[in-house]
Amino acid sequence: MPAAPRPTTGAPCPPAFLDLAERLADAAGAAIRRHFRTPMRVEEKPDRTPVTIADREAEAAMRAILAAKAPSHGVIGEEFGTHGPDRSLIWVLDPIDGTKAFMTGKPTFGTLISLVRDGAPILGVIDQPVAGERWIGAEGRPTRFNGSPVRVRACDRLERAVLNTTSPDLFAGADLSAFRRLAAAVGLTLYGGDCYAYGLLASGFIDLVVEAGLKRHDFCALAPVVAGAGGVITDWRGAPVTLASDGRIAAAGDAVCHARARAFLSEDACSPG
Amino acid sequence: MPAAPRPTTGAPCPPAFLDLAERLADAAGAAIRRHFRTPMRVEEKPDRTPVTIADREAEAAMRAILAAKAPSHGVIGEEFGTHGPDRSLIWVLDPIDGTKAFMTGKPTFGTLISLVRDGAPILGVIDQPVAGERWIGAEGRPTRFNGSPVRVRACDRLERAVLNTTSPDLFAGADLSAFRRLAAAVGLTLYGGDCYAYGLLASGFIDLVVEAGLKRHDFCALAPVVAGAGGVITDWRGAPVTLASDGRIAAAGDAVCHARARAFLSEDACSPG
Repeated sequence: MPAAPRPTTGAPCPPAFLDLAERLADAAGAAIRRHFRTPMRVEEKPDRTPVTIADREAEAAMRAILAAKAPSHGVIGEEFGTHGPDRSLIWVLDPIDGTKAFMTGKPTFGTLISLVRDGAPILGVIDQPVAGERWIGAEGRPTRFNGSPVRVRACDRLERAVLNTTSPDLFAGADLSAFRRLAAAVGLTLYGGDCYAYGLLASGFIDLVVEAGLKRHDFCALAPVVAGAGGVITDWRGAPVTLASDGRIAAAGDAVCHARARAFLSEDACSPG
Repeated sequence: MPAAPRPTTGAPCPPAFLDLAERLADAAGAAIRRHFRTPMRVEEKPDRTPVTIADREAEAAMRAILAAKAPSHGVIGEEFGTHGPDRSLIWVLDPIDGTKAFMTGKPTFGTLISLVRDGAPILGVIDQPVAGERWIGAEGRPTRFNGSPVRVRACDRLERAVLNTTSPDLFAGADLSAFRRLAAAVGLTLYGGDCYAYGLLASGFIDLVVEAGLKRHDFCALAPVVAGAGGVITDWRGAPVTLASDGRIAAAGDAVCHARARAFLSEDACSPG
């Protein structure tokens, strides 16, 4: 059992952190746009996920900025590992969340940037650099989409809810059974989207996103974006998203919808680990 | 067994038809952009698929142009039915292919426009009006993406192929078993995308698209786009796509890949109708 993260102060996230996060997103986006829809070699990592030169260049660009502007902060990145894991403030980076969408030319992947304080995400960016779409959520501030505040929509009836998940292949065993029960109960289930679906949930176009097997660089940035738009995001057991979360994530625009969905993802259906 | 369509002449599709098709796409796009990511009522049609005011306005705009500019042609549209089904030349319209993606704010739906001559599609448009992306394929002409010719990519090894399908929920019974066998044999299976995935296949970013349950307004436009980029598109049995196709579609960039994929979708796995 990991130690619970310290409660957040509730004070608005300092503007300097927001500015730095935007600068990171700008740099990653420039690297990614250079490679989008160009022929490129796709390598398979030991965990069998794909990686491209765009993933690496985008993360390297962000790390160079952090080394210069925030040398006392830690960094956890998908492609280049961990630096300073014992620091209080750690940037958690996924240069391309949805590398498979990126390699197939779909503009529904995103760069994920999170600032985590003592294990709890206090700032999150979902950036789609081809479409020029950016969601930013931060402690004590409303989530903004391209500068304007956004808000989740109400949906307290599961049978009317639109559920999105990237792929049915995210789920196995008891998790797959739980997901199927939920999918049978909602109004509509859609596939594809990666982090982009959480942005659309924050903007009020999707009611539920339920996934499993996410890593910390996949989920940390999502939490401030969803929460700052009035939504609820937890693990499948209802615990807050932290660096130590197990990668089973449930986000909803409406708290009632979240609670009802979670009943389908209940303890006995889950096989931790 | 429907009558086979007459063989096409192979002569290049007349420029006037291409111009008219672009005009239809422009009109549909203007209607759709007015409603994209705005709150709207979603109705459920008798076939349980959703429809919005954007679908209806986009189809109405295209039909108004056809009534003025091509009164002797037939029209088959998703929302407003069939006019002149016995005409030699028929426009087949799907104002929003991927209404579910549209309603959730994803820019991966498309307007589909096809001109069919004696049952065989001779012109196809896949138009993404939010991103400003348009594929046009026509008999005797190379497929163009935003004006520039595009080409499928080579991939003769199924185990390296990227397969895309909109949703696993497209398949049932023996079709689902066939799809699962194929998905287990390819390198990567991705979900989501509707018609947009066929455009990305024509542009060389996806190797295979396999779907079932499509209607004629869903598939007619795809065939000239894929074929004009050097790809192969047939039904699951290998027959050309015509107005009378049964809605089980297999498209590939590489003919070898197409043949190998079709072996997984073979006759004994299929339950027609």
